[in-house]
Amino acid sequence: MSELSEETRRLLELTSTATLTTQLFKRGLRNTFVQGVRRLTPGAPVMVGEAFTLRMIPAREDLDHPGMFTDRSHPQRRAIEECPAGAVLTIDARKDIRGGSLGDILIARLMERGVAGVVTDGALRDTPQIEPLAFPVYAGGAAAPASFGIHHAVDLDQPIGCGDVAVFPGDVLVGDAEGVVVIPRHLADEVARDAAEQEQLESWILREVKAGRGIFGLYPPDEEARARYQSWREGLHER
Amino acid sequence: MSELSEETRRLLELTSTATLTTQLFKRGLRNTFVQGVRRLTPGAPVMVGEAFTLRMIPAREDLDHPGMFTDRSHPQRRAIEECPAGAVLTIDARKDIRGGSLGDILIARLMERGVAGVVTDGALRDTPQIEPLAFPVYAGGAAAPASFGIHHAVDLDQPIGCGDVAVFPGDVLVGDAEGVVVIPRHLADEVARDAAEQEQLESWILREVKAGRGIFGLYPPDEEARARYQSWREGLHER
Amino acid sequence: MSELSEETRRLLELTSTATLTTQLFKRGLRNTFVQGVRRLTPGAPVMVGEAFTLRMIPAREDLDHPGMFTDRSHPQRRAIEECPAGAVLTIDARKDIRGGSLGDILIARLMERGVAGVVTDGALRDTPQIEPLAFPVYAGGAAAPASFGIHHAVDLDQPIGCGDVAVFPGDVLVGDAEGVVVIPRHLADEVARDAAEQEQLESWILREVKAGRGIFGLYPPDEEARARYQSWREGLHER
Amino acid sequence: MSELSEETRRLLELTSTATLTTQLFKRGLRNTFVQGVRRLTPGAPVMVGEAFTLRMIPAREDLDHPGMFTDRSHPQRRAIEECPAGAVLTIDARKDIRGGSLGDILIARLMERGVAGVVTDGALRDTPQIEPLAFPVYAGGAAAPASFGIHHAVDLDQPIGCGDVAVFPGDVLVGDAEGVVVIPRHLADEVARDAAEQEQLESWILREVKAGRGIFGLYPPDEEARARYQSWREGLHER
Amino acid sequence: MSELSEETRRLLELTSTATLTTQLFKRGLRNTFVQGVRRLTPGAPVMVGEAFTLRMIPAREDLDHPGMFTDRSHPQRRAIEECPAGAVLTIDARKDIRGGSLGDILIARLMERGVAGVVTDGALRDTPQIEPLAFPVYAGGAAAPASFGIHHAVDLDQPIGCGDVAVFPGDVLVGDAEGVVVIPRHLADEVARDAAEQEQLESWILREVKAGRGIFGLYPPDEEARARYQSWREGLHER
Amino acid sequence: MSELSEETRRLLELTSTATLTTQLFKRGLRNTFVQGVRRLTPGAPVMVGEAFTLRMIPAREDLDHPGMFTDRSHPQRRAIEECPAGAVLTIDARKDIRGGSLGDILIARLMERGVAGVVTDGALRDTPQIEPLAFPVYAGGAAAPASFGIHHAVDLDQPIGCGDVAVFPGDVLVGDAEGVVVIPRHLADEVARDAAEQEQLESWILREVKAGRGIFGLYPPDEEARARYQSWREGLHER
Repeated sequence: MSELSEETRRLLELTSTATLTTQLFKRGLRNTFVQGVRRLTPGAPVMVGEAFTLRMIPAREDLDHPGMFTDRSHPQRRAIEECPAGAVLTIDARKDIRGGSLGDILIARLMERGVAGVVTDGALRDTPQIEPLAFPVYAGGAAAPASFGIHHAVDLDQPIGCGDVAVFPGDVLVGDAEGVVVIPRHLADEVARDAAEQEQLESWILREVKAGRGIFGLYPPDEEARARYQSWREGLHER
Repeated sequence: MSELSEETRRLLELTSTATLTTQLFKRGLRNTFVQGVRRLTPGAPVMVGEAFTLRMIPAREDLDHPGMFTDRSHPQRRAIEECPAGAVLTIDARKDIRGGSLGDILIARLMERGVAGVVTDGALRDTPQIEPLAFPVYAGGAAAPASFGIHHAVDLDQPIGCGDVAVFPGDVLVGDAEGVVVIPRHLADEVARDAAEQEQLESWILREVKAGRGIFGLYPPDEEARARYQSWREGLHER
Repeated sequence: MSELSEETRRLLELTSTATLTTQLFKRGLRNTFVQGVRRLTPGAPVMVGEAFTLRMIPAREDLDHPGMFTDRSHPQRRAIEECPAGAVLTIDARKDIRGGSLGDILIARLMERGVAGVVTDGALRDTPQIEPLAFPVYAGGAAAPASFGIHHAVDLDQPIGCGDVAVFPGDVLVGDAEGVVVIPRHLADEVARDAAEQEQLESWILREVKAGRGIFGLYPPDEEARARYQSWREGLHER
Repeated sequence: MSELSEETRRLLELTSTATLTTQLFKRGLRNTFVQGVRRLTPGAPVMVGEAFTLRMIPAREDLDHPGMFTDRSHPQRRAIEECPAGAVLTIDARKDIRGGSLGDILIARLMERGVAGVVTDGALRDTPQIEPLAFPVYAGGAAAPASFGIHHAVDLDQPIGCGDVAVFPGDVLVGDAEGVVVIPRHLADEVARDAAEQEQLESWILREVKAGRGIFGLYPPDEEARARYQSWREGLHER
Repeated sequence: MSELSEETRRLLELTSTATLTTQLFKRGLRNTFVQGVRRLTPGAPVMVGEAFTLRMIPAREDLDHPGMFTDRSHPQRRAIEECPAGAVLTIDARKDIRGGSLGDILIARLMERGVAGVVTDGALRDTPQIEPLAFPVYAGGAAAPASFGIHHAVDLDQPIGCGDVAVFPGDVLVGDAEGVVVIPRHLADEVARDAAEQEQLESWILREVKAGRGIFGLYPPDEEARARYQSWREGLHER
Repeated sequence: MSELSEETRRLLELTSTATLTTQLFKRGLRNTFVQGVRRLTPGAPVMVGEAFTLRMIPAREDLDHPGMFTDRSHPQRRAIEECPAGAVLTIDARKDIRGGSLGDILIARLMERGVAGVVTDGALRDTPQIEPLAFPVYAGGAAAPASFGIHHAVDLDQPIGCGDVAVFPGDVLVGDAEGVVVIPRHLADEVARDAAEQEQLESWILREVKAGRGIFGLYPPDEEARARYQSWREGLHER
């Protein structure tokens, strides 16, 4: 699959997840917002990147213990070194937040490697160390226990569920302070473009509302409002 | 029903929701605190206002889509323009937090119109834009998807449930940083008066505790402590 | 049981709950992190102390009302005056967060008395007043209603469950910004010592990762990495 | 709205709720199965009828007690006497199953009056007496406490949510041993007709499967299988 | 405390849990029905007996394993041999249904010893062997794993919570096919007497309803209906 | 991997899931019982077979609809035709019970093909038709909606989670009226053997309990009891 274009990436960085879910809804996709996660890093930039996935099933005591990480083929450790720069490491942790999917050392390595962010529907550990990072990290909670007590990592780059949303490798994930939306890869360009349009219209509507106008005829705009918006917009571009 | 008196409003603004629930408990009302919501706007003032309600049932795909908002009789849109200044828009969203009951444009319009605050047991969307507002907004969470994918607004100003509490139109809602309490309309004056008394007593008790006294005989106060409180209080008023 | 040694206390204050859960896992204890609670006081120091427990069962209307607190033998009130200085008041509130286990006056008294902190798997009330305190307070939520509407305090200093973890009187609780771990009393010294070792190794690993090294062979360290760590560590001590 | 035709009623009685949800899905309606309820009366006939709704909000202690039932305008009691014969009394109990929405006396009266069935997303009480009835009763559970401790009945024949599904007065509810499906009123005739077709096809497919055929090309049927089905069907009619 | 009188026991055996919760509600007790449990033994008689309690906290791996049952002081094993004949073994299992609180051998021993029944808000194991017994057993579910993997038994005959209800040793538990109600010991006699009255009245009302009368004026009965009931009742006694 | 031996299969058919979980616990495996499922077919035989897995992620509207089943490579359909005779079709449905993972036609085909049973942590549909079958079917519930509205089938014969338990292809699943236990493949022979031993001992203990003996010294048996068991056992074999 071709890379995400610079233009699409730029537009998505300027667009809220709220607007993106509306654009996806208009295309018949109602279930695109990762449920139950929040951003743990308030100072992070907007996250835009293609999904690289890690899947975890429940742990089994004879298989899952600290010793297993010496094995270089362990999928959790491979995920850290193989997730491409610019991609989002997206983890199916079955919404189990009793232990951390990852901790601060692995997050630091992902940052070093230029990964775009991390999303897990499980918890993270070492969150006091993670919180100040300028790196987008989304999780269902904070929990000190290590992953091996709860999870058994099984595979990489397969379709997964994350926070009740289907995520296919290559889907585009966008995250802001509200949360994370999953855009099917083939829709990314058109959704980005239309969402940017919608953002501009809505910023004008908000301006009008703050100037004291009521919402009837304005939000959504009727023909007259749309005309006013167009002239405002043209005025903007002329300046 | 007569308007909330200035005196009652003033007293309620000085009283914590913790104290108000105790006053209601003493009158046999145990279930008055809206469960599962938190204030999304840390800089907001205390919220006091009478309930204006909006009720939503689950969405149905043929009825609920962006196009429906062009209809001026749509209850969600009417709620925004009809909720009285000074009232609290109180929403029964069935505790479904998968999508937003409202977003930033509608919140901005409610602020413009002088509404006292918003309480929903669902989520809100555009929360990054809402968070910095000096406006009391209480919700069960933050979620980007628009209301029409989850909710179908059905009526205004009817009795509802919100966060497992009965809310009748005109009931007085008070919100602080802890949450929201619902005061039945006919009890508002007496509860406000007795709560203010309780607050004053408890501020004296806290003072005593910080001065090193133990809680036995002090909290609750025995006769001797009550006498000391009375003289302190009289001293206060003399100054 | 002998008091917690100064050395163990000091080491535990320097160690994260994440590291402590790993040390306990290595000793076969998988369920040591108090689930579902968070620190309500962001400015609090690390909490270390032995558990003094309070157990609460569901309230019964004829027994539980504000009047009962005049009784000096009431377990909740006794807990406030009897929890030893340096201990952690640990409350079994059955994970019911509809009302507060305690409020600001009782918390103030515990601070005055030199108690090390409070952990409840229920909610707390008066949280706006509690939040700024430099005192470790962990709870499942914030809720205005008083405890007597939800809870009936029954006994002190008995084994309890708190956040799905067994807590025996005297167990050592450690709390940081991530949460609270429960260390069985007899393991406290060895866990503290080994956790401090692990912390030092992991701080070196993090340093290496930030310097650009990959995690294979480093985390966990192979023989070569371990050798490098040893010389770094000796260098540290020489300085 | 016109009454449900005899033909549609007859067809719906022959159709499973599984088949009906598929027909509704094909028309874009994904959320039509009442979640979290089960049939409490194993010997009941299939239920088909139009929704007559009762809405309940959380109880308030000063309003909700046994005495209130002497009031003939109480909505719960009016529901029992006003629900039309042939209709389904459908109750929004907010999925709260801690107490019964109704008990055996009111159920007996509904049977007497020729009501088609009862659906509540709350619990029922007196279920040991209800269980042997040849009357369709669907609920979220069994619980002895009376409704007034949990619920305050507010209105009749308004749109409601029941088990996470929108129910409008007049919608057609069909219930079998699996559960209850809600068919929007205007779709009832066409859904009944197409569902009956689908049932017939699927009964042939099941016959083929039991005769040893694989599902590829059969379920769903390809052209050849469809032809075989047609001749079988014609054969049936000839007999 | 004196034993439950034969008369009270007899009356309670004739009374439904639904009626008993109403009598308790009238005395201000709203929370008396054990939530989340069901009877696992359909052929059991009505259960009436005084509570003998067993409390369990979460398991700890070093303490809880099969070997511990060789210790005769283990509270779970002592509960089996010490629960008095005629009493109900009532278990606080924190509503954790992932493993069994008890299995078929211990249930058999309780039957042998003349215990009146078992109530746990956890699960039971060996339920296929338990199901046919003519012995009242109430639990939150069925689960094969043994108790020691989930629970650590700590004490006997202390106040507990069971299914969100306070249970004090000696409280009277009554169980029918709907569930279990907890009657505070000091109210047992009067509640039994009044409940028996209510049962008789309601059986007459049900008779009237089945004869075609509407509920207004009948349920609850107005003066005229009450008079008719009285003569029917006298007629009954004359016969 | 070699086939399950006839002897192991025979022993497992005679052993309860309760006993098997204890044997696995003794080998350090605490999490082996599939949580949240029950047998929907009361007349089914004991289920023993090796896991053949199907994994499903959340549905996406553009991919999941009835039309997709014409594709012979669709994993759900392939699962039906490829699951080996004697194996158990084990489905990861993410514990989502809002729709059916399978319905009666596919179940009929699996029976025809000699599959040993079905386990899903989602729901099934067409359950009224499935219930009378002499075929082991375990699910989290009954729900009419088809799988394509909730699930997107992604792969076959990969490790999955089912009811919070890890299931690897080839693991041995045993199901009785209590539920389903997952035995790691390499432990099946020894667990079967030791479980059969335990069953025999416990049947003797139960016999003793029914004869009036107390549990101390009997359950678990002390030396003297063990000796009595041995002679009873030898007596058995002599006959």
